[in-house]
Amino acid sequence: MRRVYNFSAGPAVLPEEVLKEAANEMLDYRGSGMSVMEMSHRSSSFETIIRNAERDLRTLLEIPEDYEVLFLQGGASLQFSMIPMNLMKQRKADYIVTGQWAKKAWKEAEKYGEARVIASSEDRTFSYIPDVSDLPISEDADYIYICENNTIYGTKFHKLPDTKGKPLVADVSSCFLSEPADITKYGIMYGGVQKNIGPAGVTIVIIRKDLISDDVLSGTPTMMRYKIHTDAKSLYNTPPAYGIYICGKVFRWLLDLGGLPEIQKRNQTKAALLYEYLDNSRLFSGTVKKKDRSLMNVPFVTGKKELDEKFIAEAEKEGLVNLRGHRSVGGMRASIYNAMPYAGVEKLVTFLERFEKENG
Amino acid sequence: MRRVYNFSAGPAVLPEEVLKEAANEMLDYRGSGMSVMEMSHRSSSFETIIRNAERDLRTLLEIPEDYEVLFLQGGASLQFSMIPMNLMKQRKADYIVTGQWAKKAWKEAEKYGEARVIASSEDRTFSYIPDVSDLPISEDADYIYICENNTIYGTKFHKLPDTKGKPLVADVSSCFLSEPADITKYGIMYGGVQKNIGPAGVTIVIIRKDLISDDVLSGTPTMMRYKIHTDAKSLYNTPPAYGIYICGKVFRWLLDLGGLPEIQKRNQTKAALLYEYLDNSRLFSGTVKKKDRSLMNVPFVTGKKELDEKFIAEAEKEGLVNLRGHRSVGGMRASIYNAMPYAGVEKLVTFLERFEKENG
Repeated sequence: MRRVYNFSAGPAVLPEEVLKEAANEMLDYRGSGMSVMEMSHRSSSFETIIRNAERDLRTLLEIPEDYEVLFLQGGASLQFSMIPMNLMKQRKADYIVTGQWAKKAWKEAEKYGEARVIASSEDRTFSYIPDVSDLPISEDADYIYICENNTIYGTKFHKLPDTKGKPLVADVSSCFLSEPADITKYGIMYGGVQKNIGPAGVTIVIIRKDLISDDVLSGTPTMMRYKIHTDAKSLYNTPPAYGIYICGKVFRWLLDLGGLPEIQKRNQTKAALLYEYLDNSRLFSGTVKKKDRSLMNVPFVTGKKELDEKFIAEAEKEGLVNLRGHRSVGGMRASIYNAMPYAGVEKLVTFLERFEKENG
Repeated sequence: MRRVYNFSAGPAVLPEEVLKEAANEMLDYRGSGMSVMEMSHRSSSFETIIRNAERDLRTLLEIPEDYEVLFLQGGASLQFSMIPMNLMKQRKADYIVTGQWAKKAWKEAEKYGEARVIASSEDRTFSYIPDVSDLPISEDADYIYICENNTIYGTKFHKLPDTKGKPLVADVSSCFLSEPADITKYGIMYGGVQKNIGPAGVTIVIIRKDLISDDVLSGTPTMMRYKIHTDAKSLYNTPPAYGIYICGKVFRWLLDLGGLPEIQKRNQTKAALLYEYLDNSRLFSGTVKKKDRSLMNVPFVTGKKELDEKFIAEAEKEGLVNLRGHRSVGGMRASIYNAMPYAGVEKLVTFLERFEKENG
């Protein structure tokens, strides 16, 4: 069996322990005589799986009782419509645009009401997070929207915007469970799980109860009403059961490690190793304003396209894979999510050093 | 390792060979050094997986070039809105209501236009398929809708309705790939895969190209436009990649068996064994009009609630599980999808005989 260090931005590396357990349980989940893939979503075995997953997620993030937790389908892209359809009572929302995904969310919201951009970092290829301490928030905005960690550009909101009392809606797909978070500061925290939590096809939505109601925009599909799903505890229709089962294992893995404070420490150590090297390199440099750097996605360049290509090709031969940057930024990007071991970042830095010596 | 005979209506039994292969490849997919769960959906490895899956499905169903094949999320329930949002140009559609799922689809369509019920079997608990040879089809109907196999009630359209030239839209979730089908008779054939093909969380939509256009109802979410997904070949956003990978394995399994003519033969043999027993039993009886019986879902009753309960409990001890009927029908239901081996049905019939002898 071969295992590489997989720096993919998503779908991305999962804990080896989780994959091993899943492989062992594939034909017979704990004496049930069947795979979780074959299990009725109305069975008590699956009921236990999904309720334990929710309980463990609530423990990890310290989610209070006045928030609901949903396991849905469709990815962040479906949430781009679901959010305005459910929340735009005054048909007004303010968007902070810090990357391609926030921009897509904003464009989609424009279909349903007046969606205003109140801050943006597009002027410098989204390489920083704009000042969000005193924003021109609309008086009757239904919510303020951010993408908290920008996968493509490697930026992160290290301080949440002052929303002046309006609900904050945050896409946390690429920083989900990477560090402790104060849920009470969010109206909705949501994300696709395929970066930090599980296999693509599950979207987790954590939503404050007062934002859930039958009062949705006319024409909203039944499947896109939060209340339908909260009333049915994510079992309105057949959920992506196997994906939820894997997410549950990852929650357990995090709890066993010591929860979010411990994973934060590990993530900080990994990121520090890589950023410190980049800051001191004479060949490679990071592309993001220091104070806005992500712990999860680290873009960097040599400044020469051919050298970038050479680096990516040689790294791959070393078992350091998926280091190509997003086409809109170019260069390289190392995504070092929760499940990327320290040894993987160490091996990357050692290889960066060697490459710099040989090509600097 | 224990394996039971799982008669669940869905999610349901999968071929053991497929599960074994998936378990073996869990940590290292064919030397890639990673699980398919960890694989970028933009990688060439995944590109191969999804394109081969589509190719094999096209081979199995002999899908012509003027049809697109989509792998989506959200289940049939999301299609209930997606279909009218994309197809209701005249805001008119005719529905044939043969069960709870067709009824839900009809109710959802009513949000978007004039959705008429042109035939129904609700008068007798959906225990038959109405005559569909000469229906009062609306002159300007955008499409005619059916649920081809009714999981809860155990009925199947053995002859498709005469739609008088209008596009036929069929939910085939519970009979997908159970026998050959003439795709050219359908405008859209679609279904969740969790009954006959793979793990919950993937919806396959086979759609005739002339039904795909940018002209959709206003307010249609981007993620619910067929054209967005066909233009992007199911990769507009991150797809449910692991589920698609399993579906691909099931397509291969079917092709290796001899394709749909062979699986049809096997399904007929399995169903005949069970129906023949039921027709001759003095304790058990089927609930469906003979000519409309499904090959996939076989509901039956003793007529006494306590005896039904006793049967279900004792069967479970024999490793014959998930035989409880849907709450709206009561009694028992054996779902005998493609992956249910003949030996499973045989064991069930042997147990039915023994139970009848002991309790008849």
